[in-house]
Amino acid sequence: MAAASVRVTAVATIKVTVGGFLNSLRPSRAIDDVKDLIGRSLYLELVSSQLDAKTGQEKPRLQSYAHKVADNDAGVVTYEADFDVPPGFGEVGAVLVTNEHHTEMFLEDVNLYSSSASAGSNSDSDSDDGDDGARAAPLLAIRCKSWVAPKSADAKGNRKRVFFANKPYLPGQTPAGLRSYRNKDLEQKRGDGRGERKSTDRIYDYDTYNDLGDPDSDAGKKARPVLGGSAQFPYPRRCRTGRPMSATDPKTETRSSDNYVPRDEAFSEVKNLQFSVTTLRSVLHAAVPAVQSTLTDPNRGFPSFFVIDKLFEDGVELPKAEQLGFLHSVVPRLLQILRDGPGDHVLLFDTPANVQKDKFAWLRDEEFARETLAGMNPYAIELVTEFPLKSKLDPAVYGPAESAITAEVLERQMGRVMTVAEAVSQKRLFMLDYHDLFLPYVHKIRAQANTTMYGSRTVFFLCDDGTLRLLAIELTRPASPTLPQWRRVFTSSTDTTESWLWRMAKSHVRAHDSGHHELVSHWLRTHCAVEPYIIAANRQLSEMHPVYQLLHPHFRYTMRINALARSALINAGGIIELSFSPQRYAMELSSVAYDKLWRFDTEALPADLVRRGMAVEDPNAEHGVRLTVPDYPFANDGLLVWDAIKGWVTAYVARFYPDAGTIAGDAELQAFWTDVRTVGHGDKKDAPGWPALDSPASLAHTLTTIIWVASAHHAAVNFGQYDFAGYFPNRPSIARTNMPVEEPVDAAALAAFLDNPDQALRECFPSQVQATLVMAVLDLLSTHSPDEEYLGGMETAPWNDDATVQAAYGKFNARLKEIEGIIDGRNKDPSLKNRCGAGIVPYQLMKPFSQPGVTGMGIPNSTSI
Amino acid sequence: MAAASVRVTAVATIKVTVGGFLNSLRPSRAIDDVKDLIGRSLYLELVSSQLDAKTGQEKPRLQSYAHKVADNDAGVVTYEADFDVPPGFGEVGAVLVTNEHHTEMFLEDVNLYSSSASAGSNSDSDSDDGDDGARAAPLLAIRCKSWVAPKSADAKGNRKRVFFANKPYLPGQTPAGLRSYRNKDLEQKRGDGRGERKSTDRIYDYDTYNDLGDPDSDAGKKARPVLGGSAQFPYPRRCRTGRPMSATDPKTETRSSDNYVPRDEAFSEVKNLQFSVTTLRSVLHAAVPAVQSTLTDPNRGFPSFFVIDKLFEDGVELPKAEQLGFLHSVVPRLLQILRDGPGDHVLLFDTPANVQKDKFAWLRDEEFARETLAGMNPYAIELVTEFPLKSKLDPAVYGPAESAITAEVLERQMGRVMTVAEAVSQKRLFMLDYHDLFLPYVHKIRAQANTTMYGSRTVFFLCDDGTLRLLAIELTRPASPTLPQWRRVFTSSTDTTESWLWRMAKSHVRAHDSGHHELVSHWLRTHCAVEPYIIAANRQLSEMHPVYQLLHPHFRYTMRINALARSALINAGGIIELSFSPQRYAMELSSVAYDKLWRFDTEALPADLVRRGMAVEDPNAEHGVRLTVPDYPFANDGLLVWDAIKGWVTAYVARFYPDAGTIAGDAELQAFWTDVRTVGHGDKKDAPGWPALDSPASLAHTLTTIIWVASAHHAAVNFGQYDFAGYFPNRPSIARTNMPVEEPVDAAALAAFLDNPDQALRECFPSQVQATLVMAVLDLLSTHSPDEEYLGGMETAPWNDDATVQAAYGKFNARLKEIEGIIDGRNKDPSLKNRCGAGIVPYQLMKPFSQPGVTGMGIPNSTSI
Repeated sequence: MAAASVRVTAVATIKVTVGGFLNSLRPSRAIDDVKDLIGRSLYLELVSSQLDAKTGQEKPRLQSYAHKVADNDAGVVTYEADFDVPPGFGEVGAVLVTNEHHTEMFLEDVNLYSSSASAGSNSDSDSDDGDDGARAAPLLAIRCKSWVAPKSADAKGNRKRVFFANKPYLPGQTPAGLRSYRNKDLEQKRGDGRGERKSTDRIYDYDTYNDLGDPDSDAGKKARPVLGGSAQFPYPRRCRTGRPMSATDPKTETRSSDNYVPRDEAFSEVKNLQFSVTTLRSVLHAAVPAVQSTLTDPNRGFPSFFVIDKLFEDGVELPKAEQLGFLHSVVPRLLQILRDGPGDHVLLFDTPANVQKDKFAWLRDEEFARETLAGMNPYAIELVTEFPLKSKLDPAVYGPAESAITAEVLERQMGRVMTVAEAVSQKRLFMLDYHDLFLPYVHKIRAQANTTMYGSRTVFFLCDDGTLRLLAIELTRPASPTLPQWRRVFTSSTDTTESWLWRMAKSHVRAHDSGHHELVSHWLRTHCAVEPYIIAANRQLSEMHPVYQLLHPHFRYTMRINALARSALINAGGIIELSFSPQRYAMELSSVAYDKLWRFDTEALPADLVRRGMAVEDPNAEHGVRLTVPDYPFANDGLLVWDAIKGWVTAYVARFYPDAGTIAGDAELQAFWTDVRTVGHGDKKDAPGWPALDSPASLAHTLTTIIWVASAHHAAVNFGQYDFAGYFPNRPSIARTNMPVEEPVDAAALAAFLDNPDQALRECFPSQVQATLVMAVLDLLSTHSPDEEYLGGMETAPWNDDATVQAAYGKFNARLKEIEGIIDGRNKDPSLKNRCGAGIVPYQLMKPFSQPGVTGMGIPNSTSI
Repeated sequence: MAAASVRVTAVATIKVTVGGFLNSLRPSRAIDDVKDLIGRSLYLELVSSQLDAKTGQEKPRLQSYAHKVADNDAGVVTYEADFDVPPGFGEVGAVLVTNEHHTEMFLEDVNLYSSSASAGSNSDSDSDDGDDGARAAPLLAIRCKSWVAPKSADAKGNRKRVFFANKPYLPGQTPAGLRSYRNKDLEQKRGDGRGERKSTDRIYDYDTYNDLGDPDSDAGKKARPVLGGSAQFPYPRRCRTGRPMSATDPKTETRSSDNYVPRDEAFSEVKNLQFSVTTLRSVLHAAVPAVQSTLTDPNRGFPSFFVIDKLFEDGVELPKAEQLGFLHSVVPRLLQILRDGPGDHVLLFDTPANVQKDKFAWLRDEEFARETLAGMNPYAIELVTEFPLKSKLDPAVYGPAESAITAEVLERQMGRVMTVAEAVSQKRLFMLDYHDLFLPYVHKIRAQANTTMYGSRTVFFLCDDGTLRLLAIELTRPASPTLPQWRRVFTSSTDTTESWLWRMAKSHVRAHDSGHHELVSHWLRTHCAVEPYIIAANRQLSEMHPVYQLLHPHFRYTMRINALARSALINAGGIIELSFSPQRYAMELSSVAYDKLWRFDTEALPADLVRRGMAVEDPNAEHGVRLTVPDYPFANDGLLVWDAIKGWVTAYVARFYPDAGTIAGDAELQAFWTDVRTVGHGDKKDAPGWPALDSPASLAHTLTTIIWVASAHHAAVNFGQYDFAGYFPNRPSIARTNMPVEEPVDAAALAAFLDNPDQALRECFPSQVQATLVMAVLDLLSTHSPDEEYLGGMETAPWNDDATVQAAYGKFNARLKEIEGIIDGRNKDPSLKNRCGAGIVPYQLMKPFSQPGVTGMGIPNSTSI
């Protein structure tokens, strides 16, 4: 039998994005040289999986230029190249791609077809748009989904990109012909740790958060400590950008208007339209001066609650500039340009869901309590396990460790249904403990203008009907060189003055909770903690690695959104510092929280609940834990999602790792985990809580934890932000004034409070500028992009066609749809009083799927906004 | 010694009112015949106090035409006439006045001067304006303050009016020459009880409230029962107008656009500008169609709380008609014409005091409770003296007498600080009992559209700090032929649905309290109950009578305002029926309350407090009673005012009545009291509670009670109306929808409530039309006129110059000024938590004096608005 060449056609699909980089390839907008290039724009080389048996060297690659054959209206350009595959070439294992254009291109995939099957599209390229569906199944599919830089770009090692066929291999199982490509690609992505990164780079490297401050500007007022790399401020690592250091402070990197991320971490164009540096900046630059221009004092509070309501009814007037028109299409929900008369531009906010149904919910103690279980920060409430409550701070510095909240006060507020001792032993007392976290910062924060701070403890009682009753709030100012300790316990009361002090105290605690939410539950535990996993995965796991492929959808856009956050949100003078109580200490506080509270193992939902006393382990319980508060909507729904993820991950791990030895022997996997523990989270490397990856179970649990954090944990704390905090009185980001009874009493402030407490509360609330800014940002953050990818969605089904994997994923998808129904059912069950009742916004944050926009539901795969 | 005549000059002062009836006398607007008339316009006759000793007949009267001598810019026209008083004529005791003009004139006074003393003004009339101050003290002063009809008017017995010198006489002490005039004047004022009254009449007669309905119109829908004169609907009497009876219903008087009142009961022109038929109607006619025109459905509620707030911020748009301009000057506070651009007229409401300081006070249980003690209806709360609470209604008809409010519920809500039995025995439980009053009307009221009704009981607990805690509300629908009894007890709760039901239940009780306030505490007990005292006093007490003179300032404007009320407020289809829950049964309910609750003796403040268990008699206590709730602002301040009135009245009575016999022998006084008991309040003549006028003490107590009711009681329930109810969510006048859990449950209504309780509450609230109307009326009613006369004010010092009386009045005035200071002090005392605290509107309704406008303070002498 004579060996003959087999002719195959490689079809490369390139995605054209609206207004994007590939516009030059579209006929309608062709640049001069397009036609010249058509014949020689894309160079493909096929790589054999096998080495030459005789030489042990790579077999000669099959090489060809690809020709443009189709340019359809759906934004896809197709190129084809024909290859004669010689006998004995073996299985094609990868394709090398060289982009001969002068601009980068987004390569979707390269598929190999038997040439006869692809003949049809070959002959009549112009009339044959979008005929991929009619083509026979490819001989080989290579998913790329990557930006390929042009050959001309000075991109180290990027001139020739390798893309592997859609078949995962553990490192030890890599076909011999591909091993060197596998290693070389990882080497390229790790880079050499030197020089400044360019936007076309695809290098994943580590650095500390040394770019938040800006010591070169504002007379040093914007200098900030480096977070990460020190015992004082331990912190996860961010992506290294390699910019020059500040002249003023050599520990601080100079700032840039656009932080580098590896090229494939960038937003898609759709996403980019929804949230980009440009958009965010435009909104802020438009809104801030507009609001400020109407006020003589940017610290001015709202003159009445009516004016607060007007934000939703009449909107904020914007400048008359024509350029604001673009906002209309970019963030349609955020900005409704109401009246397009001559120069009338109005920034109108939608009325948040909770306000539509119950305008006064924010005033009620029961709603305050309910939102600790079914609100946007369900990660804070914890069981009271000892009484009196005790601080772990040094009493010599911070005063008595024992709280001033007495059993007498609690028992009175509990209606004397039991003693505090009984309540503790029956696990009926809970608290929000913002005492030890904030107390050391009270005086530092107070040294700044227009803000204040207390340590706070808020105690709740679990009633027989399953709801929490808010019992008491203790606010504490520690001693300072000039002042003694001051603290006081507040409760609801029939005494009107006490009742108003109670309302003020609640507002302070809400500001503490807002800070804890944004700095710890949201930023630190999701965005910030996930970035090291992404960097490590890209540095240590080949794209062929099954774990890389499992995790990849859960890393989408995270590095980019984090880079944006460093650019405008968490930086010195950014939105967070401008709008939250701690001001310049905001990020420092998240470092303190990382130091004191963060452990990898307790990022797993069940462990998190157990740590807070909100659950106990119970092998007989459905999810292995029994909840202390049976109707804890976040926990109940979250555990369904956790288990669904874990089921899917366990099946996936089982498919690739038959035993513990395979895991221990997976050098890439172990290197990944070592990177995470010792570099990305290296400041905590000696802390407890790091599992060893030594069994399928521990690997599955670890990967489940990472996926949970990036998807469901983030969704739980992110997508309810506009619903719960859009009407800021319900969750003010800042408390600006002291309690009027704080000693030494400011007699004028106390008199003003007694005369018009309504106004005193509004002065404690965020200023008009702060409130408007935060509303705009929360609306943006709460929005699902039209190209959102949801947990378990079929659009992110695994790359390979392994039947076991596909079946497991199908089951995962089906389970998440089931969970959607279970959650709907729970929200209609009147016995679940913490999520179902008159005017209650149903708890839907753990519902997996969503439409685009602000919906208060939907779990995206990744921390992507 | 030869007897010679003495020449005296009588100076008559006539008040010219702006734009009023006397315009014709002003030069600038003279009509043709003014100059002709000047010489013969006013005819005066002096009457001797003595009879001719020989004949026993009247001495010849001294007669003269008066000439106009001055017309000053202050609106006063002066006439003079000279008389030669013959020797032996005796003291001049009265003047007869004949008005020869063609129009009526308002005669201020007639003073007699020795002619030499008045020569100056006689010689040079034109340059001598306003020189009364320079004139020597008159020989004799005759206060008139009365409209004198023209001789040409066909006014029975009014052609010649008698005015007595300023010296009070008990009937038996009347100078002989004046006796027949005294009797004749009373006869004239009593009239003959026949024919229709004309606007110039001064006849005081009785009739039933048979003019509220209008059976001739609207296909009988406006037929209403006659109130008064029957066992079914006992009621006080009103002033007889004598109009023809309805053709449809011979028991009902036909209606008129302007109800007759005796001429001197009419408003002054200043008062008339502030509140008149014209003004009221204009406001209503302007406001109603304006509001209605913007709505397709007049029953439509407010679409959001924002729109409610807009009433105060943006106002209600009025029609563009030019004629609305007049409102600007007439009721400046009520109506602020905001923008006078082309056709933009806006009805803008001031933000009520309580909302300015605490926009959310209305939501708080403690404010609900506090307002029972220091609000606009402090006459409703009562001590719970037995438990369980029991109805006095027939159980066969209305169901079990025992309330469904259990000790368990109350003890839970009391925080189990004591048992209910202990709370009752310690006098710590209080209630608003709107059960027995409303229950018999529940089904009748519900048969009407857009309203509903329950019987309600609301229970409070007196806390250790002196405040009341709102514990529970029971709402009851009695059985009907088609439905069983339904009732349920609501409490505050941590369960959100229960919490919302609690809010709805509170709104129902507030509507009950609004009805009780307006129909019983306000209309029935002040306006309506006082009119018989006025009619009786005018029919039976001569203007010479000291008791007439004492009471007269306290009757000012009452008949007129009541006539206006019958015209537009309490009539069939009037504002009360349109806006309050009982609709057509509103006035019937006030008759029921009169039947069941009204007694003369308990109209005295101390007795009222004792009756409600809010005080016990205690001879050692400052005011003779000890309060059950020590910090009961209305009671504490009211008792100060009560005692001040009583002190003044007691001194006054003592001056004229040395002993019981003088009182028993005072025929006019006894006739007055008999009229009150057997005619004006004749439907209650056999009821208990009528004191006999048989001692100075009982007379003083009786007169104090009348004055208290007309002045302080009315002020307490009237002048806080805009402050407390102007923001209607705090005191909705109506509840329009049933509780969503009422059985049989309306599933759609319950679902709508659960989905959007905010909207459900707004639908239960008054409609937009109702709310706007009531706000406009309450603002008007809460306004002090610029010519207001306050209790103890020096402008209403007694007519005569008796030193004892003047000294007693001076002491009264001084005491009221002291009380003002005491009240100010109490409002600043933080230990008085029911009146002093953060954002609390200080309790000032018992402060005696006020500026014009809506001030929330000031006790006018009379029920005048």
